[in-house]
Parts: sequence; structure tokens; C-alpha cells
Amino acid sequence: MTSGCVFCDGEGGVRLWRDERCRVVLADEPFPGFCRVIWNAHVAEMTDLARSDRAHLMDVVFAVEGALRERLAPAKVNLASLGNLVPHVHWHVIPRYRDDSHFPQPVWGTAQRPGRARPLAPDLPAVLAQDLAGALGATSTAAAAP
Amino acid sequence: MTSGCVFCDGEGGVRLWRDERCRVVLADEPFPGFCRVIWNAHVAEMTDLARSDRAHLMDVVFAVEGALRERLAPAKVNLASLGNLVPHVHWHVIPRYRDDSHFPQPVWGTAQRPGRARPLAPDLPAVLAQDLAGALGATSTAAAAP
Repeated sequence: MTSGCVFCDGEGGVRLWRDERCRVVLADEPFPGFCRVIWNAHVAEMTDLARSDRAHLMDVVFAVEGALRERLAPAKVNLASLGNLVPHVHWHVIPRYRDDSHFPQPVWGTAQRPGRARPLAPDLPAVLAQDLAGALGATSTAAAAP
Repeated sequence: MTSGCVFCDGEGGVRLWRDERCRVVLADEPFPGFCRVIWNAHVAEMTDLARSDRAHLMDVVFAVEGALRERLAPAKVNLASLGNLVPHVHWHVIPRYRDDSHFPQPVWGTAQRPGRARPLAPDLPAVLAQDLAGALGATSTAAAAP
């Protein structure tokens, strides 16, 4: 049985961190280092969440931004919560480079060039997972106080 | 003299609310109700801000989302902080409708249809300004130059 929602039915990528409320995954996207922060429950809008839950989710988003900036030194980080196709709260956290395929357009816009290949270090998921555990506390599958 | 940054040199739209740290404007965009929340100081990334400043800015973003949902009942709200072209922290808060020109694509993607005209009520800026003052406190007259 599936719910019909990709973020209810699956993890959404390579898990880097998770607690009882949300998770961070490295996404399978043509923009290296593209992470998503996904609320675990199926909720459509940020303002459907309690204020404390919103604050927690944004703390996680900003921890991901911080880790990506430290490890990948992008020219810019793009943050977005859209959800038109998948109305289940998830944040895109996207490291951008001046020579990526779309810069300075959003990744959803028109490609500007082929884009330079930028392979990720094989240990990047482990490094980011460690960074996030340091910033947010260890990954937990048990209910824990925020 | 201009700084070369549109959000340092100008308000960025019709002001709906402002305090000493940030402001909310109704943007001149083909998506009715498109608002921006602009940090007053020229800072590139959310993680360049102090944690308390980030939290304040997001409270303002979510107040705008709440007001737009109440007044315009969009199918979805899109939130994004990109800044590739203007690296001065600003949030797009975009009410989306199933019959708008781009849905379900992001507004930066490929148009899907002409899009239904959806004129805003003439008093919408005043109504949103009142909603935001109610949610966030009155617009500060102490707002200094950015």
C-alpha cells in the first residue's frame, strides 16, 4: 500500500539526519549537494505547522545551509518550499555555482549552459551527516525533546 | 548615489509592513498577491544572520503566508530565498492557483497556459497591512535607512 505521496512512501534521498519531526536527505538531482529537509508528517503548508514546529524545521534548514556552505563553498544557497506537485512540506536547499547549468536562474528556470561537472567527494554524505549531528544532535528514531 | 543593489536602493514594492530589521512589500509581478519580505541590511545568506534575526525574519515570512492564505485562499503558497541575481536576503511569498500561468511549475519555470486574470481587490494592500500589523505589531516609524 502506498499513500500516493512520495515523501510519505519513501525517505526521499540518502538520509543525512533525522529526528521524530523531520529528516534531511541528499537528493538525486543534477545539482551536486542538493539537499531536502522533509517534514515527516503529511502537512501541506508551513502555516499548518505549530509555531514551534516551524521554528524547529527552519533550524534544520539553516543547519543544512551552514554545512553545505562550509563543505562546498557555493556562490549562493537557494532555499525553497514550493510543494505544488507534492503538497507535503519539504525544503530544497541547493548549493549554486556561477558555472552550474542554470546560474543565475533558479534551477527550475531555463538552462544557461551545459554546466561544469562537479563530482561530490565520496565521503560527503558521511561528512554532512556528522556536521548535522554536531549542529542538531544525533539522528534519532525515538521521540525526543527538541 | 546608488549602491547597485535594488533592495538597498529602493523599497522593492508597495510597503505593507516594516520594522527596523525587515520589510514586507507587495511586488509588481504577474502573480497577484506576490509579496516579498526583504531584510533591510545588505546580507547575502540566511546563515549570515544571527539566529534571532533569522527567526524574526521567518516569523514575518510566515505571517505573510498566513495573511495571504486568509485573504486570497490560494491552492498553494510558494516560499523561496534565492538571491542569485540580487544577493541581498529577500523571501518570495507567492500565492499559487491551479489556473495560474505556471502551476504546478514554479513561477520561474515554463508557462503552462495563459493563466486566468485574477485582479486584486483595490483595498488588498490596506487589508494585508492591517493583518500584518495585527500579527507582528505596528509598522515601526523608527525604521532607519537600510
